[in-house]
Amino acid sequence: MKEISKKNTPKWKSELHDIIYEADTPKGKIFDILLIITIIISIVLVMLESVESIDKKYHDLLNISEWVITILFTIEYFARIICIKKPSTYIFSFYGIIDFLATIPKYVSIFLVGSHALVALRALRLLRVFRILKLARYLGASIGLMTALKASRIKISVFLFSVIVLTIILGTIMYLVEGPANGFTSIPRSMYWAIVTLTTVGYGDIAPHTPFGQFIASLVMILGYGIIAVPTGIVTAEITRVDQKKSAINTQHCSNCSADNHLDTSKYCHKCGEKLKNE
Amino acid sequence: MKEISKKNTPKWKSELHDIIYEADTPKGKIFDILLIITIIISIVLVMLESVESIDKKYHDLLNISEWVITILFTIEYFARIICIKKPSTYIFSFYGIIDFLATIPKYVSIFLVGSHALVALRALRLLRVFRILKLARYLGASIGLMTALKASRIKISVFLFSVIVLTIILGTIMYLVEGPANGFTSIPRSMYWAIVTLTTVGYGDIAPHTPFGQFIASLVMILGYGIIAVPTGIVTAEITRVDQKKSAINTQHCSNCSADNHLDTSKYCHKCGEKLKNE
Amino acid sequence: MKEISKKNTPKWKSELHDIIYEADTPKGKIFDILLIITIIISIVLVMLESVESIDKKYHDLLNISEWVITILFTIEYFARIICIKKPSTYIFSFYGIIDFLATIPKYVSIFLVGSHALVALRALRLLRVFRILKLARYLGASIGLMTALKASRIKISVFLFSVIVLTIILGTIMYLVEGPANGFTSIPRSMYWAIVTLTTVGYGDIAPHTPFGQFIASLVMILGYGIIAVPTGIVTAEITRVDQKKSAINTQHCSNCSADNHLDTSKYCHKCGEKLKNE
Amino acid sequence: MKEISKKNTPKWKSELHDIIYEADTPKGKIFDILLIITIIISIVLVMLESVESIDKKYHDLLNISEWVITILFTIEYFARIICIKKPSTYIFSFYGIIDFLATIPKYVSIFLVGSHALVALRALRLLRVFRILKLARYLGASIGLMTALKASRIKISVFLFSVIVLTIILGTIMYLVEGPANGFTSIPRSMYWAIVTLTTVGYGDIAPHTPFGQFIASLVMILGYGIIAVPTGIVTAEITRVDQKKSAINTQHCSNCSADNHLDTSKYCHKCGEKLKNE
Repeated sequence: MKEISKKNTPKWKSELHDIIYEADTPKGKIFDILLIITIIISIVLVMLESVESIDKKYHDLLNISEWVITILFTIEYFARIICIKKPSTYIFSFYGIIDFLATIPKYVSIFLVGSHALVALRALRLLRVFRILKLARYLGASIGLMTALKASRIKISVFLFSVIVLTIILGTIMYLVEGPANGFTSIPRSMYWAIVTLTTVGYGDIAPHTPFGQFIASLVMILGYGIIAVPTGIVTAEITRVDQKKSAINTQHCSNCSADNHLDTSKYCHKCGEKLKNE
Repeated sequence: MKEISKKNTPKWKSELHDIIYEADTPKGKIFDILLIITIIISIVLVMLESVESIDKKYHDLLNISEWVITILFTIEYFARIICIKKPSTYIFSFYGIIDFLATIPKYVSIFLVGSHALVALRALRLLRVFRILKLARYLGASIGLMTALKASRIKISVFLFSVIVLTIILGTIMYLVEGPANGFTSIPRSMYWAIVTLTTVGYGDIAPHTPFGQFIASLVMILGYGIIAVPTGIVTAEITRVDQKKSAINTQHCSNCSADNHLDTSKYCHKCGEKLKNE
Repeated sequence: MKEISKKNTPKWKSELHDIIYEADTPKGKIFDILLIITIIISIVLVMLESVESIDKKYHDLLNISEWVITILFTIEYFARIICIKKPSTYIFSFYGIIDFLATIPKYVSIFLVGSHALVALRALRLLRVFRILKLARYLGASIGLMTALKASRIKISVFLFSVIVLTIILGTIMYLVEGPANGFTSIPRSMYWAIVTLTTVGYGDIAPHTPFGQFIASLVMILGYGIIAVPTGIVTAEITRVDQKKSAINTQHCSNCSADNHLDTSKYCHKCGEKLKNE
Repeated sequence: MKEISKKNTPKWKSELHDIIYEADTPKGKIFDILLIITIIISIVLVMLESVESIDKKYHDLLNISEWVITILFTIEYFARIICIKKPSTYIFSFYGIIDFLATIPKYVSIFLVGSHALVALRALRLLRVFRILKLARYLGASIGLMTALKASRIKISVFLFSVIVLTIILGTIMYLVEGPANGFTSIPRSMYWAIVTLTTVGYGDIAPHTPFGQFIASLVMILGYGIIAVPTGIVTAEITRVDQKKSAINTQHCSNCSADNHLDTSKYCHKCGEKLKNE
């Protein structure tokens, strides 16, 4: 099917397609590696530019480098559109949108030169970091992890919902107990404190000062300490299950003695020596 | 049985009951969704009111909105009492009490206008956040989680008790080592520090200053790091077991002796030897 | 054997023994509950005394209460020695020593009135909190937890040793990178920082200021985040194993068809209906 | 084979080899214990020297002690080279390099007396702490733990990569939301904050000040709270599996075809059907 469709397109297009979209061919591999390096350089450039002292010294160099990378990304973007049969499948795909959002801000910054507006545009430019998400494409090993996380999706949602409800309750209680004088100036701010405490982050920018507030805070901490066990338990149970499915011991029974617990590699029953049928 | 009881009550009552108490009918679903939205709006209003700058600007709007919601909640509260056969089962149920506590504070605030008293009353008003707990009703998925947590109840109690004992001992030791000069002004305050440290929250509002105090604190942290494994281990083991039971042991009952807990692979009842029907 | 030994001792002694050492008899239960309450009161008194404002107001009341409890503990201590056949088994037992250390400091404080010495003696008095450890006696449920923790003893030791080595290395690196100017005044202090960071406590009393120091600190945090998984994994695996040993499915095989996975309560084979032999 | 090679070397060499490299002989044990004690003393000396107040008082004593230990380490280093048949296998081994790096800095400090240079050299001297890594040699119990960690290597890499990507994205978002005015002076610094928050360390040296920033920070914390479950889950599942393999699959080999991985309950080889000898 795929072979046929390739015959209808010009040879250079199908070759370009192989380089850009395929990761198994030698040329495709080189392209992917170069792309990843370019993305990393691009991210480092944005990071360096955000450091004031570096930006002052090397502003022009950074600007030119960013323009070079932006143009390379533009070429890549159009190449992806040209060599694919149905461009819309790429353009409106998750990575198509990310590629677009990673390329456009630099161009927009030419026409709009207002200093204030530029700051806002830089916000969009920084979204270029999302490009690195592309790397996830090349990592197949994450599937097992994803399966486990997806399977525990509902349980984790219930857990997160409980945490939110808890945060609202704890936030309001602490707002009333400690009050604006001790830094708990509003319920949302108290809720922020509750999350900082429940998750055991504990910045210390807001901390209870009254003995009763400290007592409640202690309860919140022990609670947070305890409930951290819940998502861990959910994910662990799920990963264990996913692993066990793949595991070495299969479910077949010996035709002679009905014994089970045979290894995938077993050829004879470990109980009676009968030849196993999966041979 | 339920059908018969409905025939004795007026039709509008049974219809109202279906809307309010049932979640499966189309009208019941709409009611529940509207109720949840109203509860969320109500919580957001209380939150916004607690932010001083917003309260100053929109005090009247917020006050009127809260009155509207309070009246809606009041109507709902009485509707729930009217349409149920035995109102006492609702009024003294967990949600009945929460519904009452979520509605009454606004009314009480009319008759008592003393500014100081009002602050105290607002405390009660804020309990309205408990209303959101109602949402838990609609989440059946939490049962599996609850079973696991209930099963590990005793082990977690033993663990929590050990943590409290540890906190008292560590609190007194640090009170003696660091002393009031370094912020450990009393044993309860030192215990607060011990909990902040053991749970790895670490605000930094109280921190050891003497080298020996820092040495003990280091031991406490490693201890806390280690014992976080205990609740996690307990809950994980329990969730794994609950999951395994679900997968290995099915819910069928023997037609002869009504014994349950049969394995999915069982063909004969393990109690009486009767052939099971799922064959 | 025990019955015979009781006949040789006077009746009141054996009765006292039953009350003090036995927890199953009604009188023994009442004694234990009263003892626990007295211990808790004693701990609360020590706590309150450590709070300066409370100590100033109620110093005499607290002092008298403590004397009453100290005398009660003394009576109990001698009662324990008298009613036991071999007093040395109690005196030199873990709880015997704790009981002695919990009682003696108050008496010593009479003869030595030097203010400085008193502070040191109070240190010993505070060890009275160890009395609460007695409570552990009455909790049988902790055995399962203890078994799991004991079984993972060696693995946890290896883990803790690795953490200590890591702390020394990280502490010296950060001492060199950040230096005394940024709060890392010595290697031990840097090690304290390393533990505060690795255990995710994060007081913030010492924090890296140089970009390179913050980079290393980031690596340390991710490391700490990762290695918290190790003790959790060890303890969880052990608790799961302890649970599975106790679990409902035993290891016997049917004498007729060799099927396994029978429940402990099974009387007939779930595969072929043959009566199981463990009846 | 080993016996033969020993006969070719002089007797004192093979004896020295037994003392230094073997841990099973009585003399070898004494040597190892003395070495560990010397290493610990050496580390304590470096630590004490880094504390300014101690260094001022006991500078000469510390300096002499360090010289004594340095000479002892030098003797040990050459003894190791002399008594081994192929010195290069030791010199370029992991421990050979560490031993060299732990010994050389003190000698280098003689010839270069410039005060500034000395500080840099001390950096190398501090690497002596790596010597303690030798202790790992004597701990065989760590193998089980290592197997579990190695098996979960790929999954943990995927996880760490996701955390890095997340850190870049969160760092840039917070840089834009909070800005330099609130301490988020650059993207790398914001990324440092993101790691401090995600790992639940929470120093509080950088903390969000704007309500929107605090809202995003709350999401980051809950995220960090959730994803801590992932490495824990991975490692736990792996440790459980390693444990189960050990318990279920024994180490015997079939006498006919030398296949391994037999279950404890196996009576016949699963590869060739030969009866196993453990019956």
